[in-house]
Amino acid sequence: MRVILIGFTGTIGREVKRELGLNHEVVTASRTSGDFRVDIASPDSIEALFRHVGSFDAVVCTAGAARFGRLVELSHDDLMFGLGNKLMGQVNLVRIGLRFINDNGSFTLTSGILARQPMPGSSSISMVNAGLEGFVRAAALEMERGIRVNVVSPVWVKETLETLGWDSSIGMPAEKVARSYKASVDGKQNGVVLDVQDFV
Amino acid sequence: MRVILIGFTGTIGREVKRELGLNHEVVTASRTSGDFRVDIASPDSIEALFRHVGSFDAVVCTAGAARFGRLVELSHDDLMFGLGNKLMGQVNLVRIGLRFINDNGSFTLTSGILARQPMPGSSSISMVNAGLEGFVRAAALEMERGIRVNVVSPVWVKETLETLGWDSSIGMPAEKVARSYKASVDGKQNGVVLDVQDFV
Repeated sequence: MRVILIGFTGTIGREVKRELGLNHEVVTASRTSGDFRVDIASPDSIEALFRHVGSFDAVVCTAGAARFGRLVELSHDDLMFGLGNKLMGQVNLVRIGLRFINDNGSFTLTSGILARQPMPGSSSISMVNAGLEGFVRAAALEMERGIRVNVVSPVWVKETLETLGWDSSIGMPAEKVARSYKASVDGKQNGVVLDVQDFV
Repeated sequence: MRVILIGFTGTIGREVKRELGLNHEVVTASRTSGDFRVDIASPDSIEALFRHVGSFDAVVCTAGAARFGRLVELSHDDLMFGLGNKLMGQVNLVRIGLRFINDNGSFTLTSGILARQPMPGSSSISMVNAGLEGFVRAAALEMERGIRVNVVSPVWVKETLETLGWDSSIGMPAEKVARSYKASVDGKQNGVVLDVQDFV
């Protein structure tokens, strides 16, 4: 399969690139590097990507930003930033990508554990991740031509916790998180929130 | 208690007004009628409401719009409309209202069953409702001064189904849906998604 991987430079994305590369052709895209450039916050940029990339069988997104911070410190614009980037960026990959993807193709997006296990400061990120999961469950019901859409919900990644200087003993190595993306691309499920702990 | 009810003219809102009015002072607000005017899609309008309404102990919102339609028929703007109205409108009631609400006050918002039980055409609404529930679970962890925030998830309302000309036998009368709002306002829970079927 020919797989477009968006966000291949991140902690998870690097490992997803390696894992998918074992048995697929991986085409990389990000804002600043890779085979193609895309800013997922821009619907026009997403459409341009799909117009230029040629035939493809899967889209995997490990990109998307939202702001961490206590609600009383977040502005309307801070909250809209996450909705426009991590949420609508990934929604638009599906919405626009549906016009271009091959039959029996798949979309694999990224939410995160804060959707279901929030913490103080996560209101924007929890909103974005939960919203994305709600979107995927619904959008899956409309898929045609054998196309599927799923979302991987990573737990805290060991390398991320190390970078933050937090206790990394509770984290999952990105290498293991990547297995859920492979399961989604190679599998048959549709409309599923993949819990990474089921695939290690 | 003095309760601000936003969206009191809708099918659910009318019954919530009656139910809360039994033992509280209900101040009504909507875009076009009531004691005060507010457009929840505008943060400035929300702030103006709270500045003018005087002391209050609870905010209940049964307002908020999002567009129904298949993903291939929805534009980026259609999806952003729901995020800016039903989702961010209610998020901003909490974010801005926190600066004005009395100690031990509460916010009660409205999501809906499509968050968890989607149908073809519900991708925008499912995204908005699920995002709101994720927001509430997280924001609740940051509440201070005894303040609480919850979200009621109505099932299909009998009167709404009748208006649509659909089979209304599966619907719950709005009068019963209203009981969950009373349970949230009068109760002690925080960060909870209230399933209306638990309160009939």
